[in-house]
Order: sequence, then C-alpha cells, then structure tokens
Amino acid sequence: MKLTQTVKKSGCAAKVPAILLREILNGLSFPPNIAGVEIDGAHFDDAAIFKINDEVALVQTLDFFTPIVDSAKNFGAIAAANALSDVYAMGGKPKTCMAILAAPLAIMEPSIIREVMQGACDVIALSGSSLVGGHSIDDDSLKFGLSVTGIVHPEKTWTNQKAKVGDLLILTKPLGTGTICTGIKQQELSEEEASEAIDSMKRLNNIVDFLSSEDITHIHGATDVTGFGLTGHCYQMARASAVSLKIHVENLPVFAKSYECLEKGFLTKAHRSNKEYTKGKINFAESLTENQKIITYDPQTSGGLLLSVDAKAAENIVTALKTSFPGTSIIGSVIQKNEFDIYVE
Amino acid sequence: MKLTQTVKKSGCAAKVPAILLREILNGLSFPPNIAGVEIDGAHFDDAAIFKINDEVALVQTLDFFTPIVDSAKNFGAIAAANALSDVYAMGGKPKTCMAILAAPLAIMEPSIIREVMQGACDVIALSGSSLVGGHSIDDDSLKFGLSVTGIVHPEKTWTNQKAKVGDLLILTKPLGTGTICTGIKQQELSEEEASEAIDSMKRLNNIVDFLSSEDITHIHGATDVTGFGLTGHCYQMARASAVSLKIHVENLPVFAKSYECLEKGFLTKAHRSNKEYTKGKINFAESLTENQKIITYDPQTSGGLLLSVDAKAAENIVTALKTSFPGTSIIGSVIQKNEFDIYVE
Repeated sequence: MKLTQTVKKSGCAAKVPAILLREILNGLSFPPNIAGVEIDGAHFDDAAIFKINDEVALVQTLDFFTPIVDSAKNFGAIAAANALSDVYAMGGKPKTCMAILAAPLAIMEPSIIREVMQGACDVIALSGSSLVGGHSIDDDSLKFGLSVTGIVHPEKTWTNQKAKVGDLLILTKPLGTGTICTGIKQQELSEEEASEAIDSMKRLNNIVDFLSSEDITHIHGATDVTGFGLTGHCYQMARASAVSLKIHVENLPVFAKSYECLEKGFLTKAHRSNKEYTKGKINFAESLTENQKIITYDPQTSGGLLLSVDAKAAENIVTALKTSFPGTSIIGSVIQKNEFDIYVE
Repeated sequence: MKLTQTVKKSGCAAKVPAILLREILNGLSFPPNIAGVEIDGAHFDDAAIFKINDEVALVQTLDFFTPIVDSAKNFGAIAAANALSDVYAMGGKPKTCMAILAAPLAIMEPSIIREVMQGACDVIALSGSSLVGGHSIDDDSLKFGLSVTGIVHPEKTWTNQKAKVGDLLILTKPLGTGTICTGIKQQELSEEEASEAIDSMKRLNNIVDFLSSEDITHIHGATDVTGFGLTGHCYQMARASAVSLKIHVENLPVFAKSYECLEKGFLTKAHRSNKEYTKGKINFAESLTENQKIITYDPQTSGGLLLSVDAKAAENIVTALKTSFPGTSIIGSVIQKNEFDIYVE
C-alpha cells in the first residue's frame, strides 16, 4: 500500500491556508488568557508558553498531517519530528507527547498503523520525551501527529518576536520538502531518490543539545520553517519583531533534488496560498528566476529552524551545528523595518 | 448545512474500537517513561499525569471527533466539554487548550467553522482555561477537538485504579447519547427533541467546583464514561483496580429519549464493538431486557463521571451535585474481584 496514494493532499500541504485561517478566526471571541499564559497563538509563535513558576514554563504545541511518504515508519517518524520541532523552536526540551491518529480501518492493516506509531515512538525516544496518551479515530484517510509539551526556563524562551536589527539569519535544514514530496505523491520520484529530504524530515531539531550555553544566549529569535514556507515564516517573524528581513537566495540551503522537482512543476496548492499570504510583503530582486522565488514559498514539513542570532556569534553557531545539521547556513540578516517585510536578493 | 450529514460516522462512534486499538499497539516498542511520568496510557486512564514537582503535576489528555449534532456551535461546545472532561476525571483543573481542527474547506463556509470554534471557546472560558494554540487541516470531513493540560496536586489525583471494595458507584450524567445522536444523524430526531442530551453533552464535568474538600477525599476512583460505554469503562476500572463492579440497571440515569431511540433501532457500530470488547466480562441478570443491556454499551460523547466513593459519603456527594448535574445517581457498588468483572442486575 502506497500511503501517499491513499490521500488527496500530502503533509503540510493540507494545512489550512493562513489567509483562510485568519478569516475563520476573525471576529471570534476567544477565552481570556489566564495567569501564566505568556505566549498564546496570536503572534504565530510555534508553541504556547504557560508559566508554572519562576523556574518552569510549559512549551506546548500540536501538529498532525496526512502521509507525505509511502513508508509507514518514515511517515510516523517525520510526523513526530515535525511536531516536536515547535518545542525546540521555542528553546524547550520535550517531555510528554500524545498521539493524534486517524486511520481508514476498512482498508488499512493494523500492522501498517503500528509501523506509523513505531516510527513516531523511535523519534520520541530519541528526543528524551515519553508517549503518555492520545486519541484515535476511524476516518477516510490516514492522519498522524502529536501534541507535545516541553519544559523551558521562563526567562530563556525563544520566540519569533525578538529578532534584532543587525542579527544574522541562520537556517538549519535545506528547503524543498514540498516539491520533493509532491514528486513522491505523483510517483515521479522514488523514496530512495528523495532520501536526503526524508532523512532531513526525520531529523529532530534538537539544536540545543549541540550548542554551548554561551551560543544559546546569542540566539535572539527563532521559529521553525513549516507549512507557510520560508517567506511565510519570515513574514511572521518580521511582523512579530517589528523588523524587516533580508534573504540571500544563493545562500539558501536546498536539497539536491529541489530545483529539479520545481522544474518538473511539482507544485501544491500551498505553493500558491503561501505566495498569496505574503503578497505585497516581499520585494524580490529582478535578477531572480521564477523557481528561486518559488523555493521561498515551498511548504516545508519538519523543516529547519530559522534563527535570528547576534552577528558576532553566527559563525560559531553554524560551526557547532554543521556536523549534525549539514544544511546549516547563514541565509540573510535582520534590517530596520522598511516598506517590505522581506527583501529577497 | 446539516453537519451530521457531512460525515459517515458521528462523534465517539468513530473512535477506533478498543479491541482493534489493542491489536495496533500490540508489540509496539514504546519510548521509555522519563522521570515524572506517573500515569501513562497503559491502564486506560483518562489522562496522563506528569509530575513537575511535589506540588504540581500536569494532567494531559486529547480528544477529537466528527459532528454529532447539526448545530456548529453545539458541536464545538460538546467537543470541548468532552475533551476537558478527562482532566476533571483525574481531579484536575484545566489550564491550557490547543485546538485540533480538520475541515472540508471546499464545501464549508468559514463562518460555520468559526461557529464550531466559538462554541468551543465559550466552554473553554467557562472552564477557566485558555486556548493557546492548535492545528488545522483541509480534510474530507469535519473533525474538532482539544488537547488539554490541567494542573493537579500529585497526591490528589483521581484514577480508575483505586476503586475499593465496599465503595458505591456514582454516575453524574444520564446515558444514551450514542443512540440519540444516531437518531439525529438519521434525521429521525430533531435537535429540539434531543435538547436534554445536547445540554448534557455541553455541560462541563467540573464537579470539583461543587464539592467540599471533605467530599473530595471520599472519592477513591474516577473515570469519565465516553466511547466505550458504561460497561466498557467499568471494565477498565474493574481491571485497573483489581475488583468487580455491580450495576443496578433500574438506578441508571437515562435521557427521556434513550430507550425510545434504542427501540427504534438507532445503533452504531460502536454498540457492537463495545459489546465485543466486554464479551465474557459481564454477567447480565436473566431478567434484563435486550435494551437494558444495550444501554450499558451505548457509546457516550461527553458522558458523565463514574465515581467510586466511600459508601458513607455517597449520599452527601449526590446531594451536592444534584442541582448542577440533575442526572447524578448511585448506580451500583464495588465488590471483591469475582468470576466476572461486571455484574449487571
């Protein structure tokens, strides 16, 4: 059974487009924030922060999606790494996970569902957190994900609100999972050919485990690059931090197959909706090719962390991460708030 | 748009049957439990317990399902009350919620999705917790739910593992939401006719807010009655507590429409799978009618709490709860572990 052939839309490409999500939430009367809620969903942060006491805050996030690869175990592993990523993106350490499972029981063997779960369990174990529960339903198509709670010191959270003018921007994983997974779904690309991207998506974003405490103090802002693509998440960071961001396309890490897949026209609806979402917010240099623009819209699944770091510490941080995250690159800088939120050169 | 007509299976009836869930999880290599995990999913507890320090433990749960009523706002409210219930079932107070949303964007107006969210937001506000995030995807059918984190004192958690021989069993809401919601889905019952059940499902299980601290010390075991039906959850409590339970059918609270709906044959697959799940575990008295048996299998959505309480405190607790939870009844007792896990008389 080819898992990607059992669903209409794969992975983060099935995410509700940001512009529509805004319309749904517009006018909604939210419950008031109780004492302890330091960060809610209002600024498109990756996770919420709930302060328990002066030493401990919870970092909470939730993510799930349809299969983006055909191997059940790889799918579970990617879904878990993707969900855990948001805790890392806030500087936290994951502690507990709950599974979100929807499966077409009539057509799918229990053993396949078990493989999905096993892939996730292996990644959860690597992260040093535990699987403490979940919920499963019979549904038309397979979906899997996690609700994750991590712990962070309340004074040491990373958010997308603190990027500073003069910072350099670091991206820790290559771009292109959207177009590559579309190639897989269209059966034009084998999982072997896509292995670089699959391994990257299974990779935990546990950069804190590889950085010195001094390195960590130089990270001012962070987010993970997922469904809204690089420019979508850059836009959210720029707005939340009241700055503009400059991106150098030639410095962007991309998978070996990314441009090849874009050239073959492997696009999702999310490529379009991400473009729509940032319409009028990005200034692209005239010299750029169409695909150099599109790669910045490419919806990422379990994408890398986008870090806004003190310029003097950037090279150190890249060096510290390069072994475990070979794609790690300095991709641009933070500039004063200007006419556009993002300048891509 | 009649929400129940947009899905194949409604509410908890779409839950993966327990027997199949066991098959899926069988042989799975779970991540080890890290320090702090006091209760995981292994004993069918309602929620996990993760101890932060000697004063504070997290109570965590996650639940979501398809529409069981046609009103979007009622659906959101029921889904929220249902998810929050598991925190109350462990003796906790809910603090943070994250939304789980899957919606058929092509056929569903944003305003309908907003109504679902609003229904949930209203119930979350009533519970004194906050909505801090979530995830939304484009899907074939509408699903909504919450991941909820509550706080409890680590020494004061309720679980299904501590029912004691001699305890009386209290149920706080009437039974029958499964058959009544099937009537709604089959368009044989209007939401007006089902209003008693709908109001009950929207009702928070916040019994702690109505009990004295002395009453609370007399509650030995608790669980909420949901998709596996009364006998399914009784079975889990009996096994976890190493006791047997005796249920008096004539004392069971049921909605005015419950038996009428059962007589019309409004059954779901979950009625059958719940029967299968407890096969050989229940001794039914010969005098019982078929529908008196079936009501004990009826899959509940946002059902009541099943409490195992010190016999001498039972009347007090019922009196304290009766105003806010008019269905509250003493339905049976805890007896020594015997040949069957449950005796229904």
